[in-house]
Amino acid sequence: MLVVMRPSATPAEINRVLEVIRAQGLEPHPLPGATRTAVGMTGNTTSVDPALFEVLPGVDEAIRVTKPFKLASREMKKDDTVIHTPFGEIGSKTFTVIAGPCSVEGEENVLRTAEYLMSRGVKFLRAGAFKPRTSPYSFQGMGHDGLKILAKAREKTGIGVVTELMDTENASAVEEYADVIQIGTRNMQNFSLLKRVGKCRKPVLLKRGMSATLEEWLMAAEYIMAGGNYDVILCERGVRTFNDHSRNTLDLSVIPPAKVATHLPIFVDPSHGTGKRNYVPPMAYASLAAGADGILIEVHPDPDRALSDGAQTINFSSFDEMLGRLRVMAELFGRGMNPLGK
Amino acid sequence: MLVVMRPSATPAEINRVLEVIRAQGLEPHPLPGATRTAVGMTGNTTSVDPALFEVLPGVDEAIRVTKPFKLASREMKKDDTVIHTPFGEIGSKTFTVIAGPCSVEGEENVLRTAEYLMSRGVKFLRAGAFKPRTSPYSFQGMGHDGLKILAKAREKTGIGVVTELMDTENASAVEEYADVIQIGTRNMQNFSLLKRVGKCRKPVLLKRGMSATLEEWLMAAEYIMAGGNYDVILCERGVRTFNDHSRNTLDLSVIPPAKVATHLPIFVDPSHGTGKRNYVPPMAYASLAAGADGILIEVHPDPDRALSDGAQTINFSSFDEMLGRLRVMAELFGRGMNPLGK
Amino acid sequence: MLVVMRPSATPAEINRVLEVIRAQGLEPHPLPGATRTAVGMTGNTTSVDPALFEVLPGVDEAIRVTKPFKLASREMKKDDTVIHTPFGEIGSKTFTVIAGPCSVEGEENVLRTAEYLMSRGVKFLRAGAFKPRTSPYSFQGMGHDGLKILAKAREKTGIGVVTELMDTENASAVEEYADVIQIGTRNMQNFSLLKRVGKCRKPVLLKRGMSATLEEWLMAAEYIMAGGNYDVILCERGVRTFNDHSRNTLDLSVIPPAKVATHLPIFVDPSHGTGKRNYVPPMAYASLAAGADGILIEVHPDPDRALSDGAQTINFSSFDEMLGRLRVMAELFGRGMNPLGK
Amino acid sequence: MLVVMRPSATPAEINRVLEVIRAQGLEPHPLPGATRTAVGMTGNTTSVDPALFEVLPGVDEAIRVTKPFKLASREMKKDDTVIHTPFGEIGSKTFTVIAGPCSVEGEENVLRTAEYLMSRGVKFLRAGAFKPRTSPYSFQGMGHDGLKILAKAREKTGIGVVTELMDTENASAVEEYADVIQIGTRNMQNFSLLKRVGKCRKPVLLKRGMSATLEEWLMAAEYIMAGGNYDVILCERGVRTFNDHSRNTLDLSVIPPAKVATHLPIFVDPSHGTGKRNYVPPMAYASLAAGADGILIEVHPDPDRALSDGAQTINFSSFDEMLGRLRVMAELFGRGMNPLGK
Repeated sequence: MLVVMRPSATPAEINRVLEVIRAQGLEPHPLPGATRTAVGMTGNTTSVDPALFEVLPGVDEAIRVTKPFKLASREMKKDDTVIHTPFGEIGSKTFTVIAGPCSVEGEENVLRTAEYLMSRGVKFLRAGAFKPRTSPYSFQGMGHDGLKILAKAREKTGIGVVTELMDTENASAVEEYADVIQIGTRNMQNFSLLKRVGKCRKPVLLKRGMSATLEEWLMAAEYIMAGGNYDVILCERGVRTFNDHSRNTLDLSVIPPAKVATHLPIFVDPSHGTGKRNYVPPMAYASLAAGADGILIEVHPDPDRALSDGAQTINFSSFDEMLGRLRVMAELFGRGMNPLGK
Repeated sequence: MLVVMRPSATPAEINRVLEVIRAQGLEPHPLPGATRTAVGMTGNTTSVDPALFEVLPGVDEAIRVTKPFKLASREMKKDDTVIHTPFGEIGSKTFTVIAGPCSVEGEENVLRTAEYLMSRGVKFLRAGAFKPRTSPYSFQGMGHDGLKILAKAREKTGIGVVTELMDTENASAVEEYADVIQIGTRNMQNFSLLKRVGKCRKPVLLKRGMSATLEEWLMAAEYIMAGGNYDVILCERGVRTFNDHSRNTLDLSVIPPAKVATHLPIFVDPSHGTGKRNYVPPMAYASLAAGADGILIEVHPDPDRALSDGAQTINFSSFDEMLGRLRVMAELFGRGMNPLGK
Repeated sequence: MLVVMRPSATPAEINRVLEVIRAQGLEPHPLPGATRTAVGMTGNTTSVDPALFEVLPGVDEAIRVTKPFKLASREMKKDDTVIHTPFGEIGSKTFTVIAGPCSVEGEENVLRTAEYLMSRGVKFLRAGAFKPRTSPYSFQGMGHDGLKILAKAREKTGIGVVTELMDTENASAVEEYADVIQIGTRNMQNFSLLKRVGKCRKPVLLKRGMSATLEEWLMAAEYIMAGGNYDVILCERGVRTFNDHSRNTLDLSVIPPAKVATHLPIFVDPSHGTGKRNYVPPMAYASLAAGADGILIEVHPDPDRALSDGAQTINFSSFDEMLGRLRVMAELFGRGMNPLGK
Repeated sequence: MLVVMRPSATPAEINRVLEVIRAQGLEPHPLPGATRTAVGMTGNTTSVDPALFEVLPGVDEAIRVTKPFKLASREMKKDDTVIHTPFGEIGSKTFTVIAGPCSVEGEENVLRTAEYLMSRGVKFLRAGAFKPRTSPYSFQGMGHDGLKILAKAREKTGIGVVTELMDTENASAVEEYADVIQIGTRNMQNFSLLKRVGKCRKPVLLKRGMSATLEEWLMAAEYIMAGGNYDVILCERGVRTFNDHSRNTLDLSVIPPAKVATHLPIFVDPSHGTGKRNYVPPMAYASLAAGADGILIEVHPDPDRALSDGAQTINFSSFDEMLGRLRVMAELFGRGMNPLGK
């Protein structure tokens, strides 16, 4: 059930709606839009009468939501979600580039990359301190030391930090150090972890599971939103198919249907999606053209010496070239860009 | 084995190489490039000594080809293949738009669409006279009458005809009427049909099988080329995965690896690939951005009344809008476009 | 629409129904069952009134069929189809083993295998004279000479011949020489070929396409049946998935749903399905246990010297062991077996 | 690296090997076999010289393991793993049936099911107290109250408890109450959770991820084993493919390759694998025939009233029938069975 307020509704009228929802034993979720506010609710709403809300002052109408995902659905919220961060807005009119090395390998490399990125105007650094690895014998990341290196890079350069959270144990630490919390593809349906980040007050970048349908992906976002964290960024990173031409099959075809189904921003990770550095720029261009709101790119001063995922990582000069073309494309598609052009 | 001639090699020297190849019981395939000619050969080459060719006048070197596909491989022919037609060049520097209704439904509609397309400069009309249908009880196409309608449209408007061939019985008829012969996804490994079009002297647009790997697709092209028809256009049209967000999963991620593996032009069919008309323009833009050499678009004067595939067919005004944006993108990506802008 | 006759209906009453169907411009398909006959019809039946048939003498009821496949559907025909051949019955109470080399490589091997199989009571020899090969440069089969060798093996040993038809050009020849005509996985939706074998008067073994859904598979069977050939055997042979543990993913899970959806017999080909000989016997046992009506097995006097598919081919002694266990299992599952035990 | 001891090696000699391994900064893993013990080691072994161990008393040979999974590999341990529990042995010569309702819904149902199962000799009850649900608004299980109900059922009937652990927070509780800890498909690569159960001293049933390759599955088992818990049971439960004939595609074809690659027992869950109750018995028979070591079956006194997964749950009388046939099959395949026949 969604209660749509009139554009003229006062904060007091909105609060009255929240109270009535709580009085029904339900959880209210205020959803401010461009011109007016709507209030979603979660819990068992099957026996709730819409008329209960429609008689309240300031209410325009109360409508049932037909999708299994509620808070994430475009039905519930027509306007694109815009996520406000100190490093710029994410979603809607802005195309955002997040970049960095696969993993935090040491202070020098991270700092050098952060400085390079900031010199190009890129406001978000991605790098993993906790690394999910297929083998227990592979490098598992620098952990808390890695988080500290990322914080130092932010302190020195002003860049925002995007880093992965793998388990509830480290949730407080990652929430403290990160500006955007990343949930990896293997944890997309780790429901305990999703509930935990639903309680965080930092935006969450939710990677799509390797064989998740669009609906399952949005249901995973719903877990986070139902906990009260509405700042969810979806991120496509390749799915499992019979294909053997690249490590995963980057599914750009999910973008237009996702844009219809949800108001959340959708990003693409062409580095993990293709697994090969020379496929990254064309897939980045195609992501923007298909309607994505941003990309995650693995970049490293010296990709051939990276501790993990070197084959899919581009160097600074390829990044520069890619960024230049993305800027022209963003303008053509009527979008602002973060990083702004020089 | 590939015999690379010197840039200065004379026709007589090239002919000498062809003779030596034939004398070994092999089939020679001359492959003219931008600056020099190479000569491929098919048959059992395992015991042939490269030195046999390297001593001939005009020969630069003889090299073994390691891919299972030979004539289709970038190893064998470095330069992009350009297919010359009376309706413009296909491949390399040109991005080509082919459009039209799913099937030939009657003279009036085809003519109206052809005239509309020519008014926008589109030089290729696609429409099926023979229709592969999942059900034996569905409309199977107008057959030979449909071919005649297409020929009439070409005669009246000057547009080129792209139409599907489903079986060897109709090969002569389709070859006579079509300017480009289309092989459908279900026939990508119909080897008897591939051998037959290998003998045709019209370009072949080869749709990718629903679960074909890149290598299998190129091997199918190889069947056609081994028969002597080197004018093959590859066309991605969506593959089978677990996804349920669209009818097929349009695999744009195959484009960069295909560009590495082969010199043949690669097209995309976003209409069949998505199955939904509002997903077609973003996927068309993404195709160009990913490096495709052209697209196939289903367009119809009144898509909601189309006899087949109406849901994935766009109308004239959506087509106009899409074409406008594609033109600007082509320029940005340094490509000419067929249709040219006004 | 299906017209179900009373058990007591006379041939004259059945003929009257056929006439009325034809008078509607439809095609009747008499479907004799264990206790009574039903008459299916194909063509556009949407406007036909069931009452038209229900008033005729001998008619019990007329019911609409809801599936897109009609003649193949269990709705239309409750009883399992039994295919009668001079080499034994196929389907329903019988579990049938078909075996032989991948391809006809020469008279001696075929004869030796046929003699061996007959000595074990196996009544059907499989071997390809026409071979669909991914590469145009691979051995394409012995063709017509291969068909003659198969005919000779039948003449000398009395074994039935199962062999593949790849194109309409060779349909008459294969129909003449084969006792069961095989349609390969790559041709499952070669609709022109399906229509052609619909006119043959030999049973057709229809392999499932590599990424065909159950419904598409049954629609392919429907193409054959709509042409008047009701003796269709379905054959699962592995589908395309992300799996890399075997060449294809043998989909035994399709058997129970197929048994619900259709009355046609369903076979399994564990040799192509797994691609590895030591996986063949366990998958053969599992096929029987899952409810399959038969299996196709690649067997060769000396698998390591087979010209094609040696890795998935078992030798005579493994075949003997497998056959022994299958016999005990068939009895446990209340089924007769062809070959009968000694 | 694997150090294979002589059959005559004494405990002191084995201990000496463990010491030498630890002195290299590596972790030793003693692997007792039927006739002799081997000692695996994990850590960075690339620079360790096999000769270091081969000179020690009691050592037969030291060999490098080529697979990325070590402790789970058949290379490292030739004999099938047998897991000893108070409720019977799991693996190798025994085929084990685990059954119960999808989720703990209340004391009465669980008790009634446990009593029924014990009356048939079934020694393991499966039921979820913590339920991973796609939607945050679905019933999430009874949690700790559910665990207590399971413990009560064990106390009253003597049945062993198999139940799912979803997060590290509840690891101690589940370890305390469960006899076998289940890790669900969505958590197969939740590496933090895998490491945690690696420290548990209860066997772990590890469900295969929905799109996990065999190698990834074994690497997940390796995470658990590397932590010191060697009692891992693999469980196939259906994978994601293009198929729409059942909820998932139950991949029985993975069993023979898994048996080659690993010594761990492999189970099948045909209830989740098919999603439809009438497909469960044939897939259970096929699992045993394909070589599985056990099955997980959803059974409920009144499936149509089950709170979750009713459609895939069979009732007591179907279970009885299935059990009867499995018993005869187990004997045919030379395996003991838990439950034993009466």
